[in-house]
Amino acid sequence: MGKKVVIVGGGFGGIEAAKALAKVDVEITVVDRENHHLFQPLLYQVATASLAPGSIAVPIRSVLASQENARVVLGEAMFVDKEARELTLRDGTVLDYDYLIVACGAKTSYFGRDEWAAHAHGMKDIRDAIRIRERVLLAFEAAEREGDIEEKKELLTFVVIGGGPTGVETAGAISELGRQVLAGDYRNIAPGDIRVVLVEMGERVLSGMSDPLSHDALRQLEELGVEVRLRTRVEDVFAGGVRLRDLRDEDAAPEELEASLVVWAAGVQPVSFAQRLDVSLSKRGQIVVDKRCAVLGHPEIFAIGDIAHFVPEGDEWPLPGVAPVAIQQGRHAAAQIQRDLQRRARQDFVYKDKGMMATIGRSRAVAQTDKMEMSGLMAWLAWGLIHIMYLVGFRNRLIVLFNWVWSYVTFKRGARLIVARHDEALEGGDDKPSPLHAAVPARARESRTPPPA
Amino acid sequence: MGKKVVIVGGGFGGIEAAKALAKVDVEITVVDRENHHLFQPLLYQVATASLAPGSIAVPIRSVLASQENARVVLGEAMFVDKEARELTLRDGTVLDYDYLIVACGAKTSYFGRDEWAAHAHGMKDIRDAIRIRERVLLAFEAAEREGDIEEKKELLTFVVIGGGPTGVETAGAISELGRQVLAGDYRNIAPGDIRVVLVEMGERVLSGMSDPLSHDALRQLEELGVEVRLRTRVEDVFAGGVRLRDLRDEDAAPEELEASLVVWAAGVQPVSFAQRLDVSLSKRGQIVVDKRCAVLGHPEIFAIGDIAHFVPEGDEWPLPGVAPVAIQQGRHAAAQIQRDLQRRARQDFVYKDKGMMATIGRSRAVAQTDKMEMSGLMAWLAWGLIHIMYLVGFRNRLIVLFNWVWSYVTFKRGARLIVARHDEALEGGDDKPSPLHAAVPARARESRTPPPA
Repeated sequence: MGKKVVIVGGGFGGIEAAKALAKVDVEITVVDRENHHLFQPLLYQVATASLAPGSIAVPIRSVLASQENARVVLGEAMFVDKEARELTLRDGTVLDYDYLIVACGAKTSYFGRDEWAAHAHGMKDIRDAIRIRERVLLAFEAAEREGDIEEKKELLTFVVIGGGPTGVETAGAISELGRQVLAGDYRNIAPGDIRVVLVEMGERVLSGMSDPLSHDALRQLEELGVEVRLRTRVEDVFAGGVRLRDLRDEDAAPEELEASLVVWAAGVQPVSFAQRLDVSLSKRGQIVVDKRCAVLGHPEIFAIGDIAHFVPEGDEWPLPGVAPVAIQQGRHAAAQIQRDLQRRARQDFVYKDKGMMATIGRSRAVAQTDKMEMSGLMAWLAWGLIHIMYLVGFRNRLIVLFNWVWSYVTFKRGARLIVARHDEALEGGDDKPSPLHAAVPARARESRTPPPA
Repeated sequence: MGKKVVIVGGGFGGIEAAKALAKVDVEITVVDRENHHLFQPLLYQVATASLAPGSIAVPIRSVLASQENARVVLGEAMFVDKEARELTLRDGTVLDYDYLIVACGAKTSYFGRDEWAAHAHGMKDIRDAIRIRERVLLAFEAAEREGDIEEKKELLTFVVIGGGPTGVETAGAISELGRQVLAGDYRNIAPGDIRVVLVEMGERVLSGMSDPLSHDALRQLEELGVEVRLRTRVEDVFAGGVRLRDLRDEDAAPEELEASLVVWAAGVQPVSFAQRLDVSLSKRGQIVVDKRCAVLGHPEIFAIGDIAHFVPEGDEWPLPGVAPVAIQQGRHAAAQIQRDLQRRARQDFVYKDKGMMATIGRSRAVAQTDKMEMSGLMAWLAWGLIHIMYLVGFRNRLIVLFNWVWSYVTFKRGARLIVARHDEALEGGDDKPSPLHAAVPARARESRTPPPA
């Protein structure tokens, strides 16, 4: 009987760890709250109707179907008895382990303002993306029927908070979707009616990249019609808008911006399982790990990816929460388990930084590695190639490629489905208000629209 | 200024009427509660994870984007002032019309037992299909973890009520999905653990077809492992099962069947707008129309498709609620409006019956026209060809074709995403119970499963 390896989380890190153990004599159990592995870097494309949810989500079970030594459990990890080496799931199931790999990632962080969550939509899972897509599409529906020009412009205002890759990509994609795709389908909406505002507290967008690339990204965003507000702080988020303060001008009054959608891409924090594990946490709440990715004092527990706090030798900052880190740490944890079984000494983890990239719209992107920097069409093609190559599962790769080529050639979007609030409609028959109405902002419902001219 | 034509409903009939008026000097407004036109005949394939929701749903706005004289309004038709010729939507919008085409279809009918709706899932819209898909996938997840063999079999029991095309296709597809696709991905589930029961009150399934074809269908269902109960009445539907009575044996005790999913495909009724229109209704609640598809006493109002009661000349029975009737009546209503404008006399509607078909699984189907009958692989190929040809929108045709060929060759299903209850998770953070748990039947949650062997 092989040793038992329990992996919490079927994201990039967890899946990679499981796969790397395929030929090792261990019994692997992957536990996840969701039934699917999500290709998060493309989540914003679901939010902006370029890709269908199913194109970037693959059942974890399918990914590991042919791996004899792995099984998958749909469930939520709750408590760990580190002495007994037992993981208890929310439904009471107990899994005992010889090795535990904690790879359950991060969730949206509102920096202590959790009440904002109701009005500023995070972008971490497939539900978030579907909700954002529906809000955008419904805003256009409401605007199409709105007679008052000011109200219409408010309905077509979208605010994205956070100038990192997710914020930049989302803002660019919403602007493009609105101006180049949707505007043509609506009789009363012109491209100029659409306003997308990207809010960033720092001096520049994509601050992880070089200065020139960051400026290129800014210019490309502005070409797409995105209004970028640098050095601007979000003071409040409320139903239907945000209040902003310009940090460059201390005397300026805060500005209220009415919007039909606020996307929150400003930060993440580890999921709460990190706290329940009862080990050393960093200031940001991540699990502190040693140079081998193991939890301090518990060599049988590894923490990898977004949930882990790993500071490279001689470096000041911990590794960022990006897919390549999770993937490489997943492989590393698997390798250490194998070394243990072979009674060989563990090795330190060394991160191979392959660079960063962000896409800003059709033919626009920026990319940087330690050897080179790219911007524009070339960066965009490189971005597309790399993302397709990484997409788990051959079938999805083809579908995604097909969708992209199609959107590029025709300017159409295939994934413009509103399924809004399907649970509310459960026993409704058709006598209840249409579920769609509930999702349209209140002022759009109250306004009485003129009959067709 | 052309006459104003308001079309209520963007289904087969409504879209066809709008398109047939493309070159006529009229102003068309299509009103629908949903933003998408749905290809209903393939809805069961979404419910059984063969197709993604977006593959059979196209934004109505896109379908009519290039038609200059048509606009689309997302809204719900509430009241008609037939004297003033005004249609009022739920949000208060008033649309005045010269012609009104009522094409808003049917909804699931529980034959007066509306309380069953909570436990027996209808199959009329995309929400229904997604919900059924999630229930099936979650049942497999729960069964995978269930240690008790009896409990496991209950979790893997699926009941489909109604032996018409929808019921037959759904039962066949669930059985195939479970036995040939899912069983392979789950370690603790064998094909034989899965039970699909199709309940029909009449003497045979697909009673609209010839006797031999109906028997072929029965045989093909049984080959797929579906347990068909003919002459059986549903006495009750409750949380977690149904009570059935065998009509051939009056003395037999009713039988209780525990199941993790009950699909209701036993009947439909017109949506409630039919009643609010305040015109003559049939016993089944459909709008009675004359030989030209116009409402009695109101030549300016047409009713077409599932919501209309049209009895062909010399016939005893009204036309069935199928797509070809709606499509042909949509064209006919458009033609009558055009004839009015040209001051030509209206013509009677003559239905051209092109036959019926139903698919029962991979390579299995039955089809009949007035000239011929087909069964098995040939019928299945014909079915696939015709459905792809009819699918609105070139892009969807390719995607659907690709998905089918892919599933056929690999036995895989691409659309196995569980998004369950995304609204519940809104403000949840990750400290609330996983949204998935809520959807798993209670007994699966309570049972304590054994740790992996």
